[in-house]
Formats: sequence, structure tokens, C-alpha cells
Amino acid sequence: MTDERLIYLPLGGAGEIGMNCYVYGYGLPGRERLIVVDLGVTFPDMDTTPGIDLIMPDVSWLEKRADQIEAIFITHAHEDHIGALAHMWPKLKAPVYARRFTAAIGRYKLEDQGLPKDTITTVEARPDVVEAGPFSVQFVPISHSVPESSALVIDSPAGRVLHTGDFKLDPAPVVGEPWDPATYAAIAEERPVKALMCDSTNIFTQHPGRSESTLTGPLRELIGGARGMVVATTFASNVARLKTLAEAARASGRSVCLLGRAMRRMVATATETGILQDFPPTISPEQVLEMPRDNVLLIVTGSQGERRAASAQLARGKYLGIELKEGDLFLFSSRTIPGNEREVGRIMNALSEKGVDLQDDAGGLYHVSGHANRPDLVTVHSVVKPELLIPMHGEHRHLREHARVGAEGGTRSLLVTNGAMIDLTGDAPKIVERVETRRSYLDGSILIGAFDGVVRDRIRLALNGHVMINVILDESDDLLGDVWVEVMGLPERGQSGGILSETLERELTEYLEGAGAKLLNNDDRLEEALRRMVRQIGVVEIGKKPETTVTISRLQDE
Amino acid sequence: MTDERLIYLPLGGAGEIGMNCYVYGYGLPGRERLIVVDLGVTFPDMDTTPGIDLIMPDVSWLEKRADQIEAIFITHAHEDHIGALAHMWPKLKAPVYARRFTAAIGRYKLEDQGLPKDTITTVEARPDVVEAGPFSVQFVPISHSVPESSALVIDSPAGRVLHTGDFKLDPAPVVGEPWDPATYAAIAEERPVKALMCDSTNIFTQHPGRSESTLTGPLRELIGGARGMVVATTFASNVARLKTLAEAARASGRSVCLLGRAMRRMVATATETGILQDFPPTISPEQVLEMPRDNVLLIVTGSQGERRAASAQLARGKYLGIELKEGDLFLFSSRTIPGNEREVGRIMNALSEKGVDLQDDAGGLYHVSGHANRPDLVTVHSVVKPELLIPMHGEHRHLREHARVGAEGGTRSLLVTNGAMIDLTGDAPKIVERVETRRSYLDGSILIGAFDGVVRDRIRLALNGHVMINVILDESDDLLGDVWVEVMGLPERGQSGGILSETLERELTEYLEGAGAKLLNNDDRLEEALRRMVRQIGVVEIGKKPETTVTISRLQDE
Repeated sequence: MTDERLIYLPLGGAGEIGMNCYVYGYGLPGRERLIVVDLGVTFPDMDTTPGIDLIMPDVSWLEKRADQIEAIFITHAHEDHIGALAHMWPKLKAPVYARRFTAAIGRYKLEDQGLPKDTITTVEARPDVVEAGPFSVQFVPISHSVPESSALVIDSPAGRVLHTGDFKLDPAPVVGEPWDPATYAAIAEERPVKALMCDSTNIFTQHPGRSESTLTGPLRELIGGARGMVVATTFASNVARLKTLAEAARASGRSVCLLGRAMRRMVATATETGILQDFPPTISPEQVLEMPRDNVLLIVTGSQGERRAASAQLARGKYLGIELKEGDLFLFSSRTIPGNEREVGRIMNALSEKGVDLQDDAGGLYHVSGHANRPDLVTVHSVVKPELLIPMHGEHRHLREHARVGAEGGTRSLLVTNGAMIDLTGDAPKIVERVETRRSYLDGSILIGAFDGVVRDRIRLALNGHVMINVILDESDDLLGDVWVEVMGLPERGQSGGILSETLERELTEYLEGAGAKLLNNDDRLEEALRRMVRQIGVVEIGKKPETTVTISRLQDE
Repeated sequence: MTDERLIYLPLGGAGEIGMNCYVYGYGLPGRERLIVVDLGVTFPDMDTTPGIDLIMPDVSWLEKRADQIEAIFITHAHEDHIGALAHMWPKLKAPVYARRFTAAIGRYKLEDQGLPKDTITTVEARPDVVEAGPFSVQFVPISHSVPESSALVIDSPAGRVLHTGDFKLDPAPVVGEPWDPATYAAIAEERPVKALMCDSTNIFTQHPGRSESTLTGPLRELIGGARGMVVATTFASNVARLKTLAEAARASGRSVCLLGRAMRRMVATATETGILQDFPPTISPEQVLEMPRDNVLLIVTGSQGERRAASAQLARGKYLGIELKEGDLFLFSSRTIPGNEREVGRIMNALSEKGVDLQDDAGGLYHVSGHANRPDLVTVHSVVKPELLIPMHGEHRHLREHARVGAEGGTRSLLVTNGAMIDLTGDAPKIVERVETRRSYLDGSILIGAFDGVVRDRIRLALNGHVMINVILDESDDLLGDVWVEVMGLPERGQSGGILSETLERELTEYLEGAGAKLLNNDDRLEEALRRMVRQIGVVEIGKKPETTVTISRLQDE
């Protein structure tokens, strides 16, 4: 007879920073009742996912068990935790729980996809409890760079789990709830924490984290001392930063204008949900044009260099009538996420060409991280005193280092990566199953699998260019006219000096005119022979082997 | 009557870090005798230059004036200073001058391209002088992260220019010549420096640079304390680092194995040219397999995450029989160049999965930069005391900041970007001409222009996928058979649930069957109508507008 068990299964987030999706289950093996924590996205890049709009966890394991899912919990409103909700919900169709601000953002997302908003239930923080099958779940306020971030206390018959979500230890976060060690000590006191699933993002940062409130002075000084227009960019969801920036503007007699849809939506949502109070009245881009430059602070989207966001638009030229110029100041109140350096650099140089002064987060004066650093993580281990530490929210090297740091501090630690199902029930947690975890890509309006070959073909086209060959054969399998060749993404002329497509047409036509019936009457052989010829000619003419598509049309006797 | 003038014209490097190419000229306007300093490359990326092998300055301005070119001087053997030499030399055909080590590397490059090696003349350092038309040029030793880096003293009838090349102020560079302020003071003493063209790479780094020799202790300690195999990666051309690593290995009883062609070539060249002495004997990969793991140090290529280099190969699996495992140590004795973070991160995570311990340059213990930091640059300004500072080797924001720092310190400074020709003759240097500077791409074996549309098309294919339409019309302009559609890089099925290519075939065939002669007998109109249809169907079916190639074959009466 097999007993009921408590399982943990990360489907995303335990192998990357982003795309968070964690599953907990309780019940008889294979028949566990499930809860899902977070449904996040990660972002595509040209190197590995050209043309893709969003990357999401592959939830097919969950989809097959949709009737076992009791609930979906969203810890906070960052895209890497909530971004896949509206795309994946139709596959899972379980009730969604979140706190007020997160729920409001989630409802916008459902609405955008034409889904019912009442899917999401707004819940209050601990001591309120959400009952979800065998689980009782509490949202526990924790500080982070978005309002109302929450850790989850997940109680099951087999014990208590603390799932931190993303967090930092901020005693004065400007907006939202401070980190309160007493709350977390009480949770552990109330019932021992069997497992702590813990954010690992900043495990490599050796110094203790700094409070959001330490930015107030430097930002006031910087903005107060500026002569021209000031533009500041940061993540729109960092409502505390928006508030600090806006207050620094007010203190120096500047009006605030928000540029970018996400920026306006975040401020509106934070105000409506009562989280943001006293945000100064904002002015429109039209009003900006009528004011002296040194009376304005623009707070804009696009801190990561996104091409269509306000920062990039302002760097390129006039945006909504506003043009930056010599003497203006552009502040990156943000860290550049690794991989975005080139895009951000392009914006900085374009602004430099306009004579705009640049200020980034150098020296930490104008930005602090939203994640707990190594010493802060050690503090959490010691406050929560878990029987087991399972690092999450990190690339492999982050998880591994976090587990090492945990073990070094005397906390039993287990490295668990995406797809590893852990049985937490007994005294010896163990991997009981490996679930295949892939990724889903949103491509335009279609969800495709990472291994469908679509992206592989796009990368090949981008690297090698495309040769399209058109052959028409008559009823006797003789070539009708010449071979027709179109090329795309290839040099016009080859080494011989001739036009590449013409060289190909001539050589392929010659080849087919000399070919026998055995080749000409067999589509597969003919196609393969033409591809081989293109590769050979490609190497000689342009030093490349292009991708090749062959179309063979055979005319029929009527 | 117009007088002779001294001009300066950057064709690359004054707007990017990389792709250095600077022109000096002296003579009557338009008839100046020219010298070229450096012919470097920069590296492509998937975002902006997919499929491209190398990016080089567009030298067409020089090519048109090839008979005015007296000489080409190469300051040092880094790719961004010498990498385009063999590709561009056939267009310029001028004698090339370089010091011993640089010349040896240059000759390898010419040989690889089948060009005569005697093109390059090896020269000795100052006080030796190379006469090149109206110019007298001296190579002045300066410390950098490759042996025999040199600044150039360029004398002309209109005055003396000091062109720093890349440099740092290292009093103990381990290999090669230390920075010697007396040498530079003497140069300024001998003849006032009219203009200082100065490296700007590290202008944003506030602390003074550190010496290569400060790494000796930490590297010995790290390698000496390791239990398993140790692998270290750095730029192959950083011969001093290779020496420090090899000596640390020797001190802890480890044998050194070099992996990667560039690594072996650099050590061989440095040894042959007498620059590198006492490098320990190396062992082969086969010998590595027979030794205890803790008796080996591998020094390998691929510090920037290059896919085919040794680091990436070792991260992926077995390479030349060598496989890393739990307890081994992998050291990045290098900085990740912005833009390469994702690739380097992938390698780190793959190594982490193998249980390999990672060490990067965190804390500066295991890597120092090869470029002068802000205080070092200020030192150079004050030693050389130029009439004019012209920052080079930087993106726009670096050049601008360097000019600002110069002016702040009392040195007249001028921001000069690629394509701006400066007349340095009189007391008031001024821009006299704007030369169009583009970029040349090496694509396979073909040099193409940045604006030829090849790369634009590749990016479009990668982002949007490709639809190929094939229409055959008979003698009466009637559709023969159905429209044939091939797709590449697109989802197999659309929103309707049908196969995308079949949906397109059906809808386009229907459309053409209902179309009138006016459309069917006009190739341009027909093509445009089909493209429009594909975009419309694309939006509905897959939420994307694919790239479309249309082939119309018209059968003729015989």
C-alpha cells in the first residue's frame, strides 16, 4: 500500500531567472491534488528565439492533470511570475488567487486575451487562509520591487512549506510592506518549516542589500541639480521607484509626465488599489511641450533598451513631440539585465550624440536591486530554520551556489532543477520522477513548441540565406524552360563576378539538361541533387551553404 | 592659393570600441600624402548582423586614393587593430609596418589569405624612425594586454601627433615593456605635441588601473588550492596572463596544456619572437588523459563564449577526450565583453551542471583590464601636455566623456567621430569635410556593404518566416493547377486548425480562379496581390506577416 505524499515539481524558474512555475501536490502517488505557484514568462532573443514574442513554461504535464488542479497562486505582478497566466489559463482552468494589486494586473491580462476576469479571486494577507483541497495557503507580505509581493505559507497534512517568491529584506521599501523578521519567525514558531523554497537571484552578490529608501536623497540631489529636462527610466512595476522619482521632481518644482502604456497602467492600478498614495498629478506630453525644460521630469518605459518603448523612441528622435537636446539629463534608474547591454548601449550612444548627459546606476546611488543578496539569504535561512532548503529562481549556477551556501551554514540543502519531482513527505526528500520540461513559444498568435523546428529554420535562414529553386518538367519529364532561382539574404554577386541567382540558374539548368530520366522522374532524388549542387556552387561562389527550397512542378497530360 | 595641411580622419574606432582605422594626411587639400593607422575588425551579432563573419571599416575613401597612401602602421596585434589587414590590403596595397610580434601575427593573416608575407616590414621601436612621405613615424612601447603594443609618434611638417593606440599604465606588465612616463615626457619635451589621439575605452572607470603583476599571488593561491583539474580561459593574445597562469601551474606541480589553435599560435609566436621566455613545456591533450587531474592546468580559448572554441566544447561534453567533472575548477581570467553575457552564462551553467566549480573575475583578483582608467588617462594628458586632445577608441558616449574630462582638466579637447576630417594645421582645428563611413561585412568569402540589404533580408526572414508562392499560368493566362505554397520558419498550423501551407494554397487558388485577366496578365500586379493576400491570411491565421517570395511561370506557345 502506498501512502499519501507531498510533492514539489518546478516546471520553470529552477534553471533560469524568469519563467517561474512551481507545482505542489498532496495525495496518493499519481493522484495528488495540485496547486500551481506562478505562471511566468521569459523573454526571447535573436540568438536563440528570433521572431518569438514570449517564452513560457511547457505546462503539458499540468494540462493532462487539469482536473487535479485545485488552484493557481500568483505571488506578485512581475512578468516572470504572471506573464503566462492569460496564455496558459485556458489549458488549466483553475481558480486563481492573488492579492489586490497582483489581481488587478492579472485581470488586465485576462481581459487583453478575452478571458473572464472573475477567474481571479482577490485575497487578503495572512492571517487569511485560502483552502485549496488538501492545502491551506497564506499570502505573507515580503518586500520586493513591485507592490504586495508575497511569500506563500503552504500547509499540507505532510507539513509546512515556505515559498518565498521574489524578495529582498527591505525595512523601508517606500511603497508596500517592509520585511518583518518577526512575522517569519512566528511562521516557523507556529509550525516547523519542512522546506524553504527560496529566491536565488543575487546569491553571488556578497554585500547586504540596500533599502529602496536610500535612493531618496541621491535622486533628489541629482534631479534638483539638473538644468534641462530630466528623463528617468525604470521598470514600470517598480512603483516605489516611480514614487521616489516623482517626489524628487516635486521637491525641485518639476511636473511629472509618464510615457509608455505600462507606466501609466501601473501608476493607475497602484493608485486604484490604494497602494500608491500622494502620487503627484501628472501632465500630458502636450503639456510638456508648453513648459520650460527644467520644469519637467519624464518617467519612461524601456530601461532594457526595448525598441518600441519610450526610451528608444526618445533616443531615436522626436517622440510625441518631445525632443531631447544638449543639457538634458537621462537617468537609467535600473540595472541592465545581462543580454540587454547592446540595446541599452545603442540608446546611450544615440542620446550622447544629441548632447544629452547620461547617468546610470554606477556606484549604486540611483538603483537598488529587488532581490536579497547572499548575507540576506543567510539571514532568511536562520530566521525560518527550515528542515530543508530548496533554492529556486536561478540559473543552475545560482541554485548550486545557494545550496552550497545553505549547507555551509548548516541547513540541509537540495539542488532541484526544472522537471525534478521531489517527494518531501518523509525525513529523506528524494527525486521520485523526472518530468520532461520544455518551453512553449508564443509566435504571433500561435503557441509552438521549442522543438517544433520553426525557430531552428529561422536561425538557419538568418545565418545562411535562402535559395529557392523552381523546376517545371513536362509530360515526358523534360525540363520546360530554364531552372528559375530566387535568392533572399545572400550577396548579389559571387566570386565569379556574375549575379548569384543567374549563376545558379545557368549551372542548374545545364546540369538538368544533361541528367537522365532516372533523376528527372524522381522528385526526391531530383530535389536532393539540386540541393547538393546549390551547396557546392555556394561554397565556390560565396563561401557559404545556403538553405535551399526546391519546388518541382510536373505538367500533366490533360 | 591654398597651403599644405595636416589632416586626421577616423574611418573606424571613433564611434565604437573595435574596428580601428585612422588616417593621417599631409599635403595640398585633396592631394595629401596619407598614412593609415590600424586596420581592425569588430564582431557580428545575431541581432544586427546574422550570418556575417566579420565587420570591417568601409575603406572605399582610401581605395579611391590608394596611390596617395604611403604606408600602413599597425600598433598591436589585437583583432580590432589588425583583423582587417589581410582583407583590406588588396584594396590599398601599401607597405605595412609593425614591430616584431605584431608583424609575425600579421604575416600569419596574410598567409591565410594567400597574400605575400613580405608586405609587412618589421621595425624597431623609437629612436628608430620610419619615413613615409612627409611623415616620420616612431613606434613607442606602451603597456597593454598584448605584447609590444605601441603608441605612434607621427611627425609632419605641421607638427607632432601622438597616437596612443590601446594602452594601460602598467609599471610591471609581466611580459613586454612597462609604461615609462619619462619616455613620454621626453617626447613632449623634444617637440610639443600638437594633438594627442587617445584611447577612451575605460573613461567611465573611476579608480586607477591595476598592474598585471598583481594577479600573480591570487592566481597562484587559487590554482595551488584546487583539488581537481583546473581550466583557465582568457584572450590568447594576453601572453602575460598565459605566462602568469603557466607559472602558477608550475609552482603547484601542474603541467600546462594549451587548447585552441589561437592559444598555441600565440604562445609559439611570442616564443619565436623572443618576447616570451621560460614558458614551461606544454603537454598534449593525449598526455592530459594519462595524468592525475590535479596535475593539470588547461589554458583554453573561448573566454567570450564563442560556440566553437575550447571553453564551449568542454562545457558541452568531451573535447579531445577530456571531460570535466565534479571537483574541477573553471576560471574565467577575463572580462565578459558587453553583449556576450548570454553565451558566457550558458557555458557557466553547463559547467555548473557537471559539478564544476566556477571562478570569474569578481573582486578583480583574477583579471585586470588592458586599458587605462579615468585617472590614468588624466595622467597621460598631463605628461604629454598636448595642444589638443582627440579621444578615440570608444563609443560616442566614451569619446564625449573623455573630451569632457580633458577639458575639465584644462586640455583643449575635440570630439571627433568616424568620417569627420579634421584640419589640424592652424591654431584652430576644424572639421573640413564629412566622409561617408559605412561598414564592410565579410559574409562567407564575399565582402558586402552594410546597406546592401542582405542582412536586412536575413533579419526579416528570421523574425517573420518565409512563404514561397509558385504560380504557373498557361498561354491564355489561366491558372494551371493549384497555387503551390512552401513555408519555412512558420508554425505548421494556423488558428483555423489547418496546415498553414494548405490554407494558403486553398485561399490563393480560390482567389486567382476568381481573378480577372487584368490581374493575371500583369506580373507586378499579380505578385503584389498575392503578397497582400499572404499578409492578410497571415494575420488571421498566425498573427504574423511573413516574408513572401512569389514565382510566376508563364508557359509559352511553342
